[in-house]
Amino acid sequence: MSTVSGTLSDALSQIVGHDVDLACAGRTDAGVHGWGQVVSFDTSAKVDCGRMQRSLNSMCAPHVVVRELTEAADDFDARFSARSRTYRYRVLNSVLPDPFLHDGTWHIRHPLDLHAMNVAGQSLVGTHDFSSLCRKKIVLVGGVETEATLVRTLLTLEWKHAQDDIVELWVTATAFCHQMVRAIAGTLVEVGAGKLRIDDVGSILAAKDRNSAGVVAPPHALTFWSVQY
Amino acid sequence: MSTVSGTLSDALSQIVGHDVDLACAGRTDAGVHGWGQVVSFDTSAKVDCGRMQRSLNSMCAPHVVVRELTEAADDFDARFSARSRTYRYRVLNSVLPDPFLHDGTWHIRHPLDLHAMNVAGQSLVGTHDFSSLCRKKIVLVGGVETEATLVRTLLTLEWKHAQDDIVELWVTATAFCHQMVRAIAGTLVEVGAGKLRIDDVGSILAAKDRNSAGVVAPPHALTFWSVQY
Repeated sequence: MSTVSGTLSDALSQIVGHDVDLACAGRTDAGVHGWGQVVSFDTSAKVDCGRMQRSLNSMCAPHVVVRELTEAADDFDARFSARSRTYRYRVLNSVLPDPFLHDGTWHIRHPLDLHAMNVAGQSLVGTHDFSSLCRKKIVLVGGVETEATLVRTLLTLEWKHAQDDIVELWVTATAFCHQMVRAIAGTLVEVGAGKLRIDDVGSILAAKDRNSAGVVAPPHALTFWSVQY
Repeated sequence: MSTVSGTLSDALSQIVGHDVDLACAGRTDAGVHGWGQVVSFDTSAKVDCGRMQRSLNSMCAPHVVVRELTEAADDFDARFSARSRTYRYRVLNSVLPDPFLHDGTWHIRHPLDLHAMNVAGQSLVGTHDFSSLCRKKIVLVGGVETEATLVRTLLTLEWKHAQDDIVELWVTATAFCHQMVRAIAGTLVEVGAGKLRIDDVGSILAAKDRNSAGVVAPPHALTFWSVQY
């Protein structure tokens, strides 16, 4: 399966004439969309930015578009220079599904209580161990397999009505771990549907146990929206 | 390849227990979307409309949804009772493409002159032989292969700005022939881009020659919008 970063780095390598290592601001798991993704790379080639952008866009169309391309400071790294990231999760909350919105929304038939979802969501804001809402990650530390920390700082969380029957979750954190936004969305939707109580969300977080949380919402309704430097 | 009408009639046949002949209000060629499509069928089965709608929606998800299902008068036929049909054609008129709009719009990079497109479009309104803007159709009349008439009555045509960089063509006719909306959209976009003059559209229509017109716009940006009874 082709990925956005694979498509982009293949095209870049062809243009600059050497292998390119892309640094990406935010993770987008398979099926997740990226709107305001930022990437950076080093090159020894002499670059005409306007021309490179046009070449990339003709090589990567139609599923990838480079909206802006500029030379950055030497110490800029799209991933490590980022202060925070914002994701959007879209829910279609209506009795009937909508085939036109199938690709970008999660269809929830049960009427959702947005107020309850927002109140419950506030218990996730701040610095917490998100083990209950992330997939574990094993990293090598000094040759030893170790569980990576799942402590993250969630800066803001808000559910709001968008147009028609669409409701959106907007979350900003310094960084996210694997499946974190989807697990948050899935758990809060269960609060909104009355399957979990508002207070349950704090207990889920405190349990530090992946099995305590609600469902992981499907990826296709998630969009990496923007990154703040 | 599965079609909307195929998916729907298969599901219906299963529910009512006999083969079902669907009458569809408007044509949707491969790749064209249908929003307000109306279909009718005869059945000898005793029907609970609410229950049938729920069954159909669970059998046809996610790409087909039945928004309403009611019993009609005996002489109602979704196709032959229709007085007129409305289609929408969407163009993304921007320098950069938008991967999120790739499925529902035709990307035109050259700035379009909507006023010119509307003026040119008015020469198509009324009753005309649309041979220049339709694909020929051979029908059997008394066992003899005959070209079907391509005379149609276009009631209204309007290009307008929708949100952001999206422009839309809205057309209503008593009936359309094959590829007619896409040929009209393609030809008028050439006017808007300055490749054809406003006056050329009248000459194209008068030529009654498929080769005189502009390109046929791609199907994925076309939506059968509604039908009037």
